[in-house]
Amino acid sequence: MIRTLAVVGTGLIGTSLALAAARQGVTVHLMDRDEAAVRTAAALGAGVPGPPSEPVDLAVIAVPPSQVAAVLAQQQALGLAGTYTDVASVKAEPERAVLAGAPDPTRYIGGHPLAGRERSGPLAARVDLFQDRVWVLTPSRLTSRTALDRALALIGLCGAVPLVMQSRAHDDAVALTSHVPHVVASLMAARLRHGTPQAPRLAGQGLRDVTRIAGGDSRLWSDILQANAGAVAGVLTDLQADLGELLVALRDLAGPPGRRSARSMETVVDLLDRGISGLDGIATGHPGHPPRSASVRVRIADRPGELSRLLRATAELGIGPEDAEVRPGTAPHDDLTVRLAVPAAVAGPLLARVTAEGWDAENDGHAAGVPTA
Amino acid sequence: MIRTLAVVGTGLIGTSLALAAARQGVTVHLMDRDEAAVRTAAALGAGVPGPPSEPVDLAVIAVPPSQVAAVLAQQQALGLAGTYTDVASVKAEPERAVLAGAPDPTRYIGGHPLAGRERSGPLAARVDLFQDRVWVLTPSRLTSRTALDRALALIGLCGAVPLVMQSRAHDDAVALTSHVPHVVASLMAARLRHGTPQAPRLAGQGLRDVTRIAGGDSRLWSDILQANAGAVAGVLTDLQADLGELLVALRDLAGPPGRRSARSMETVVDLLDRGISGLDGIATGHPGHPPRSASVRVRIADRPGELSRLLRATAELGIGPEDAEVRPGTAPHDDLTVRLAVPAAVAGPLLARVTAEGWDAENDGHAAGVPTA
Repeated sequence: MIRTLAVVGTGLIGTSLALAAARQGVTVHLMDRDEAAVRTAAALGAGVPGPPSEPVDLAVIAVPPSQVAAVLAQQQALGLAGTYTDVASVKAEPERAVLAGAPDPTRYIGGHPLAGRERSGPLAARVDLFQDRVWVLTPSRLTSRTALDRALALIGLCGAVPLVMQSRAHDDAVALTSHVPHVVASLMAARLRHGTPQAPRLAGQGLRDVTRIAGGDSRLWSDILQANAGAVAGVLTDLQADLGELLVALRDLAGPPGRRSARSMETVVDLLDRGISGLDGIATGHPGHPPRSASVRVRIADRPGELSRLLRATAELGIGPEDAEVRPGTAPHDDLTVRLAVPAAVAGPLLARVTAEGWDAENDGHAAGVPTA
Repeated sequence: MIRTLAVVGTGLIGTSLALAAARQGVTVHLMDRDEAAVRTAAALGAGVPGPPSEPVDLAVIAVPPSQVAAVLAQQQALGLAGTYTDVASVKAEPERAVLAGAPDPTRYIGGHPLAGRERSGPLAARVDLFQDRVWVLTPSRLTSRTALDRALALIGLCGAVPLVMQSRAHDDAVALTSHVPHVVASLMAARLRHGTPQAPRLAGQGLRDVTRIAGGDSRLWSDILQANAGAVAGVLTDLQADLGELLVALRDLAGPPGRRSARSMETVVDLLDRGISGLDGIATGHPGHPPRSASVRVRIADRPGELSRLLRATAELGIGPEDAEVRPGTAPHDDLTVRLAVPAAVAGPLLARVTAEGWDAENDGHAAGVPTA
């Protein structure tokens, strides 16, 4: 239970969590060395400007990773709060520094809400920034139960999902899922400075997606990369090895056909296939996609537009082309069989719907072998 | 003007353009070595299955880059069409092969519509896939005026925007804007196979965006990378050099603080800044964002929620927090000044709106120095 909160650093993250806490009736005190940032956050309704007159229940140190320990030590010496957490996206180095130098490390628990935007500053804040997002907590060997409970209460106020990890494990994981992706996006975006004048006209959504996160604040991100340099360098070293092999293969494939090694094409295909299988890992982490465990078979006439009509009818039940597989009959103009892989609960309504539209349909049982969405 | 069209290869691209042409009244003949793909495309309403009985106006060879020249030579020998184009995303190598081996290279013009999806096959086709997209044409030194005109007619039927380039210039540009981004996404996605079990829970939208295009068909993409291997290797070599420098810096930053070189942090910041400036190039290619050339200054009371109220009022005019800058007065509880950078045409309506709501506002003239969206 938190009644009073202090936020030190009213940027995007600090202001957003202040807005969420203030909306739930918590008294929030806003602090930042930039006076305009504090007044902007206050004018948005995130709390009252300036430090509290007596210690608050919880203080959130919302500053870059390299400044967490120093700001915490300073505020703890001033008695700002009973317990402290932070929101830096690197956890091992701040924890080490807090254990080494804070007045009372038992009152601190590391935190990292996994939410952000390319834009920074209080004006970019949103009250629902953390809704349904993972918020990691990294208790140290000294963290008190009270510090953990109050951090959990804050996460609850923000509508986020707590995940407790050790700081080192957190840093290894975010090196892979956040910091190296940022570097990769920057490496790619940096190349765009050297294109021909016409190149931007050939830029599509794919390029925009790959490079989008490279737009983040370079001071904040260099701070993050420095604080997690070892783990980031580890992943990038493996990536560098893949890139080196790929380049050998591509240079070979660019040479005269007669001299190419058969292994070069294998190297290229292998990297692309490993990429595809790597995506499986993050796709399965996605909630909200029920498994396509049932299958319905529909016969349609081999007539122009008939398949489109079926797909329009099934779209209302959340079934798209990605769930469909078409099998022609043996002779030309035989009926087509369309097999639809669907969540088990949808099979009944789907059968009813397509039968009502005049198609022949039957439940095909378990959808083994049909790719799931 | 095209009255009859043949599409050889009824995958995503071939079926989509067939749908667009058929909808405009063109008679479309669908061909593919995969009979199920032809019947699926026909059932979607993309045309009639099988080759035409007499030569069509234009044939589109919608097969992977390495097969374009062979399929074109074969179909031209059979007299499929008066003129030919293709849709492969690499243009120099197919052009070279066509000039070397096609029965009549004057009847061929290279083409590349810049549209696609991660999904492939005729079921993924959409009649509006090319709407407002760039469609590159690469006439060779032999291409006839008729071939160019008919390809332009097809582009018009699809609602796309033609862009004429030389095949080599096209390939250099797409190496940078499409092929290297795909490799980079694959390199990143391949690393995800080696994360800890908890890592996927820390995967956010940034990672998903960076890796999304890695999900493309690995056979098609290895074919593309092979056909443009030289240009792709060139860009990747420069990227490899940046990565090498960055790794030296990160390994230094991972070491003990006393021994770190001041230049290491500079190297990291420099790469991130070059990434940010690289994004400018593709952002300026974006239509539909009128310049923020005017500026309106609004005074609001220093009261919780007042700024939110202003932003809600301006949101209806398309003005968001990214257009706002807050300047506090000199004393605490002085009014705040909010400067809104807006398109010139919006300044008047905005002034009227905020004045009607009771705020003090004035036109601030030209928005020099205010960041544009």
